[in-house]
Order: sequence, then structure tokens, then C-alpha cells
Amino acid sequence: MAVEKTMDKIVALCKSRGFIFPGSEIYGGLANTWDYGPLGVELKNNIKKAWWKKFIQESPYNVGVDCAILMNPQVWVASGHVAGFSDPLMDCRNCKSRFRADKLIEEYMQNNGIEPNAGGWSNEKMMEYIKEHQIKCPDCGAFDWTDIRQFNLMFKTYQGVTEDSKSLVYLRPETAQGIFVNFKNVLRTSRKKLPFGIGQIGKSFRNEITPGNFIFRTREFEQMELEFFCKPGEDLEWFEYWKNFCKNWLLSLGMKEENIRLRDHEKEELSHYSNATTDIEYKFPFGWGELWGIADRTDFDLKQHIQHSGEELVYFDPETNEKIVPYCIEPSVGVDRVLLAFLVDAYDEETLEDGDVRVVLRFHPALAPFKAAVLPLSKKLADGAKKIYEDLSKEFMVDYDETGSIGKRYRRQDEIGTPFCITYDFDSVNDNMVTIRDRDTMQQVRIPISEVKDYILERLKF
Amino acid sequence: MAVEKTMDKIVALCKSRGFIFPGSEIYGGLANTWDYGPLGVELKNNIKKAWWKKFIQESPYNVGVDCAILMNPQVWVASGHVAGFSDPLMDCRNCKSRFRADKLIEEYMQNNGIEPNAGGWSNEKMMEYIKEHQIKCPDCGAFDWTDIRQFNLMFKTYQGVTEDSKSLVYLRPETAQGIFVNFKNVLRTSRKKLPFGIGQIGKSFRNEITPGNFIFRTREFEQMELEFFCKPGEDLEWFEYWKNFCKNWLLSLGMKEENIRLRDHEKEELSHYSNATTDIEYKFPFGWGELWGIADRTDFDLKQHIQHSGEELVYFDPETNEKIVPYCIEPSVGVDRVLLAFLVDAYDEETLEDGDVRVVLRFHPALAPFKAAVLPLSKKLADGAKKIYEDLSKEFMVDYDETGSIGKRYRRQDEIGTPFCITYDFDSVNDNMVTIRDRDTMQQVRIPISEVKDYILERLKF
Repeated sequence: MAVEKTMDKIVALCKSRGFIFPGSEIYGGLANTWDYGPLGVELKNNIKKAWWKKFIQESPYNVGVDCAILMNPQVWVASGHVAGFSDPLMDCRNCKSRFRADKLIEEYMQNNGIEPNAGGWSNEKMMEYIKEHQIKCPDCGAFDWTDIRQFNLMFKTYQGVTEDSKSLVYLRPETAQGIFVNFKNVLRTSRKKLPFGIGQIGKSFRNEITPGNFIFRTREFEQMELEFFCKPGEDLEWFEYWKNFCKNWLLSLGMKEENIRLRDHEKEELSHYSNATTDIEYKFPFGWGELWGIADRTDFDLKQHIQHSGEELVYFDPETNEKIVPYCIEPSVGVDRVLLAFLVDAYDEETLEDGDVRVVLRFHPALAPFKAAVLPLSKKLADGAKKIYEDLSKEFMVDYDETGSIGKRYRRQDEIGTPFCITYDFDSVNDNMVTIRDRDTMQQVRIPISEVKDYILERLKF
Repeated sequence: MAVEKTMDKIVALCKSRGFIFPGSEIYGGLANTWDYGPLGVELKNNIKKAWWKKFIQESPYNVGVDCAILMNPQVWVASGHVAGFSDPLMDCRNCKSRFRADKLIEEYMQNNGIEPNAGGWSNEKMMEYIKEHQIKCPDCGAFDWTDIRQFNLMFKTYQGVTEDSKSLVYLRPETAQGIFVNFKNVLRTSRKKLPFGIGQIGKSFRNEITPGNFIFRTREFEQMELEFFCKPGEDLEWFEYWKNFCKNWLLSLGMKEENIRLRDHEKEELSHYSNATTDIEYKFPFGWGELWGIADRTDFDLKQHIQHSGEELVYFDPETNEKIVPYCIEPSVGVDRVLLAFLVDAYDEETLEDGDVRVVLRFHPALAPFKAAVLPLSKKLADGAKKIYEDLSKEFMVDYDETGSIGKRYRRQDEIGTPFCITYDFDSVNDNMVTIRDRDTMQQVRIPISEVKDYILERLKF
């Protein structure tokens, strides 16, 4: 029987084991903010490392950058965010509650067996639909709406000592623009030829009206974005390439194929500048949710910046002696979101022979917070066990636990996804061997201590 | 003769080679913001990894966290930042220029051969000094000052759709408070006993009036902070421990001891709650500058949060059955700042036998952006060389370069600090050996291709 994976179970496990805590918890929290605990930060770092390894380090095409969160506001004029990055909001005049009009409509559709699809509708179209279907305020039941108005999602702040328009800056709503703005710098310094990509990992901020679903949608989040530049005409080919590359990255880290689907955007859903867009979606407990957006953005972004900055953001093609504005493929994924997917995917409950149920996080070893746990069978064996712990922790994260029965300690490690438990027993003192227990199969093998490091390192590969 | 290391040289090298670019450059920049290019991001990541490895992964005491930048504003009331985290500003009534009063005084002291020391002075004391010494406006020469007023350095923004005091939040000015706020969560989930520490790497923001000296002082910066909790009375011992630990971390990564000094804070310079504070300073081209602050903060922070949150942030000592509020040692270092120190420290110009001068960044291999560069002696040898490149890049960052003379390619790698150049020549095809050139000694050894990976991995250790 399939295990029922609920968000409640996942959130509770995260909190009780130290993956993720509510942000500012001792002060009653702060909206939908979250802090990563000792295990969560390792999982998150491992995901970021795995992305960097495949998208930057091993890629013959790509290089990385790390740009500032605070950018010149003109960047967001050029990118279209100042004018167009907004949510449609409306208030209930009766109870003063505030809602996103598109979400209100989609909720109505959902409740009435209609496939929700109000994304991208104009204010007029939404208002018409709301009136036609007499959609009432979910809070008070009144039908007394204000007009719909657009609310910009960028966080604003002021840099310097005066708060005026001259000192207004935004917290970046995406990392991508830092890449476009540095296109020429990277081209000039990296000796890259088309096709090539520039990747970045970093925090972004969106003042979402309705964050929610745990870490799925938060106002502060981390992105892993690649902007891959190629010749116009070769873009659809590269679009396919990166679509498969992203999907394979997920699969190679153990995500189950049946929980992933690719959704191609329909013509009318596409941005006006996009040749093609596909979302890789994951089957979360609350439904299918976007994980990775892969978009063929053509030359839209570079052209916008050429226009607004007056700089020549072009590539000189040595073969044809022509200057071209490259096309761009953008695979963009949220760290927190993909972390949640890996958590959900790894979660398992297994009924054992004795009727006990064990909770296991079946992470790929490359993602597991601890790669191994060293467990001396008795506290008297601490000296030898600690020696192993010290040796291994030079290579990767290792836990050490000498408290409680060995069975209990195995369960504890299962629940946090540690792939290998190393048991140091009374024989180990003399034969220099230890037992390694596999998290998933619970099988044990006995190997020389000198081989433990390579045994584990070999299994971290992906 | 010692090489003259100037900031101009460092900044120029950073820009020309892809370490660091001015932020939002195509739009004329944005104050003192900087973007890390393809080499800079690798250097920065390597520094962060090196900190995490020694402070978290290999430490039997410490665990990590990763907290949100946006926190409940009450956190900053409790920490004292809302009331006290400010700079003393004054305006010139004549030309409307704005200055930090303490900096104005220290500049005056500097110019008049007095050791600058106006830090921590009261507004009254500063105004008195300015009047006594008739310190004039550096911009227009007038002596017509406004009063000194305190300007809070926290960036403000609004979360949600209304901009009022209820939705006001700050960008964190330090990562430390995220740790204190999660003290209980970590204690509860990590089975840690005193002494233990919690570390964090992340962005912080301070609305500095006078950022400057390249990446030394920026409004947006990254911190690596450890809060180490111990029993009261054992704090000074642990203070010494972490002071040495931090210094040794720098030395183990190749920083030259003669460029480092430890400056203990005098009694009158200490915060009222601190038992001891030491700055590790680095000799930058612009003078000695603080790199690492190590402070014994006693139980000040936890007590503040106990008072403001009403939560019992205590440790139950199983030996004495008593609840105690632990003391805390805080080693806090800025990533950007220590990166600048490593850059300056590594910079060298060497006159060769033929009179040529080569620029070398003598990074420790663990910090170098590329660990190796694969250089085929001819483009005809690309197949074999690329095979080596692909194999090695599964392990670490590798460059590949087949353009220009081999001498030129060596110089290029020297200038970006690549410790090992692997030359694949016509003999390599048959004997499966390559030549490895050492960046610092320029000595070459010939070894089997199958041994290259381990040869380099061995030298990355620190």
C-alpha cells in the first residue's frame, strides 16, 4: 500500500528533526518565513552543490557569477518588472479583506470542477468573470468588491540617508537580470564562444500576497538560474537540450519519474517574446506544482538592456564577422521548492517484520545531510569510534551517536536520511573491521575500517 | 624588492580577469555594489566551503543553520539594533553635504598626527571636539554644522500590500540574531551538550553612509558567523580557543603571518556586556583593517531574547540539574572582506630570468578558482586533452585552453592563480603521461595521466 505523504507529516518531521523551523518563531513568527536548521542547511547546501557541479563545474559551456541583490533600479525598468511585475488585487468593501483576483477565480473554478486557468487574464476579463459568477468574499460572504488594481511585487527600500525617489532601490525579484547585465563582462573576460551559459545561485524576493504551502511559495527564496546564450535559429534545439538536462538532473538525484511531469505552455500562455516554455512539475501532496521553468526567451532580455543602457550587448561571430544578439534559454528553479520536492519524494514509511513502522528519508546519498553515522556499540568503545568519526569528517558530514540502543539509533538515522550507519563493536578493536548498514535495504556488510572512506565516497557519486 | 601592492592593481586585475565587476555597470553602477564574475564566485565559494569545513563539518562541537534575511522586527528591538545601531550624522548648512561626525574627527586626527580614536564617543563629546578644533566642511570649507543626529543603519522595507508600521521589516544587519532566535530549536533537535556552537553563512545589509575601499565595506555583504555557547566561567578559555582557531584558519589557507595582527579591545572600547574582544586585522594597501571580530558576549544576547520573547532560552545541565543561560563567544568574519585579504595576500609580481615580469596570484590550491588547467600543446591534441579535462572536472573546477603559445597560456593561468597546468603534448598520445607545471616554482614533473587526479586532490588539502 502506498504511503500517505501529507504536508503535515513532512512539516512535523522537518521541525522535530531540525530540517526547517518557522522563522522568528520565539516572536510568533513572521508571515511565511522559514529557517533551515542543522539538517536543512546541509540538505540545501547539497542541492546547491549538486546544481553547481552539473551546471557549472562539469559543463564545458557554462560559468558562474554571484551578483548583488541590490541593483540599479534602471535594471528593473529595462526588464519590465517596474511596469509589469504585479498581482491583481481587490478588496472586499464590507470586511476590508484583500485578495488576488486571479486566485479567487481559480479557487472558484476548482470548487466547481473547472480546470483553474485564470493566469494572465486582464483585469477586465477577471472582473467580468467575478460578476458573471457572483463570486463572493470568502471571508464574509459579501459581494461588494473594489476595482482590481495591479500591485507591484518588488520589495522597495532606500539606500543612503534620504528616503526619496533618487535613493529608491528594489530587492531583486530574480537572479537572472544580474546575468544579463554582466553579459559583456563575462564575454570579455572568459574567452567563451557561443553557445555558452552563465549560471547563478542566490536569494530573490517577491512580495507575494498569498505565500504558502510551507516552503513552496515564500517571499524570500533562493534561485538557481542559468541563462544559456546561443545563435538565433539554434534556440529550439538547445531548449530541448536543457529541458532534458534538468529532468535528468532530478532523476540522477533519485527523484521518482512518476512524480514528475513536463507541461508545455500553450501558445496563448506563452510570453510574447518566448518561442517555447516548459514547466517541470512535481506531484506535491497539495497537487502538481511548478518546480523548474525552462524558457526560450529569444533575444528579449539582451535587447531590452541594449535599448535602456545604450550598451552594445552583442556577440561578434568570428566565423561570419557579424555582430549578433544571441538568443537565450533560461532554466530557472527554486532551491527551497526543489528541496521540498526532494523531501516529499524521499519520505517513506515502512512496516517491518516485527510490525514496527520505520520512517525513512530515502535521499540520494549526495543529498543526505549526513553521509554516515558512527555508532559505537558501547560507550566504552568511544575511542576507536571517535577516531573513525574524525577521519571521515575530513571528507563529508558525519554524525556521531552513542546514546540509546543500536536499534533506536538506526531509526533515528533512518528518519533523517543517513544512508550509512557504521557500527563499531567489541570485535572492531581487534580486527579493525566495522559493520556498515544500508539505510534502504537494512543489509549489513563488514569491511575493514581502512576501506570505509572509499566505500562511502564511491556511493556519493551521481 | 617587495612588490608594491596597490588597490588600483588589485581592482584592475579583478575586473580584467573576471573576479569582480562593478555592480549594474551598464547602468552606471549603483553606489559601492560589486558583482562576482566567473572566477570571483569560485574564489568566494571556496572560502565559504573552507569555513564550513573547519567550523562545521570537522568540528565535533558545531552545527550550521541558514535563517531568513527577513525577520520579525521584534528581533531587532531585542538585539538593540532598533535603538542603538546607528551612525552619527551631521550636515554642512552651507553646501548641504552630509558627513559621519566620528569619521570627520578621525580624519582630522589622522591629518594632525593623532591616533584616530573617536569610535563610541557621545554626540556631545564629538560636537565639543569639532568646535574646539574648528573642524571645517571638507567639501566647501565652511564651519556651519547642524546638530549631530543618529541615523539607523538598518535597511527598511514593507512586507504585504500596505506600507505602515505593522508591515515594516528590516533587512538583517547581521546573521547572528537568526542563531540566537533558533537557540532552543537547535538545542531541542540536535542532542548537543554544552559547549556547542551554531554557525551561519549569509547575506547581511547595512545602510552605511560611507561604503568604500572596493569590497572592504559594502552595504550588502556576506558574513560567516559562529555563536559558540559554553558555561559561564569557561568563556575566557573558549575565547582564547576560537581566537587561535580563526587565526590558524587564515594561516592554514596560506595567509602570511606578517600581514595579520591581533588587536585586543581596551576596557573602555569594550561593549558593556563583553568580557573580551579581539579583532584580527589585515594589512590592506589602505592600512590595517578589521577582518575578524572575536567577542566574548557573555549571556547578553540570550538574556535580551528571554526578556523580549518571554521564552526560556536556557540550557538544562544534566550534571547539576540546573538551568543556565550559556555564555557566548562570537567569531564573526565578512566573506567579501576576507576574500579581499586573500586576493591582496596572494598578489605577486615576479621578474623572470629573461627580464619579463609575471603577475601571479599565489592562492592556496583550496582557494584557487581553477585547480588545474589542461593545455594541449597543439589543437590537434584536443581529443586526448579534452578527455583529461572531462575526467578532472568531475572532481573540481578545471580550465581548458588551447589558444596561443604555451608560455602565454601559463602566464594567463598564473594571473588567475591556477596552481597546476597540465600540458598534453605529442608524446602524451603514446606514453599516457602529461607534464604538470607548478604555478609557484614553475617546476615541471611528468606523471602518468592516471595519477593526475590524486596528485592534485592531495594538494588541495589544508
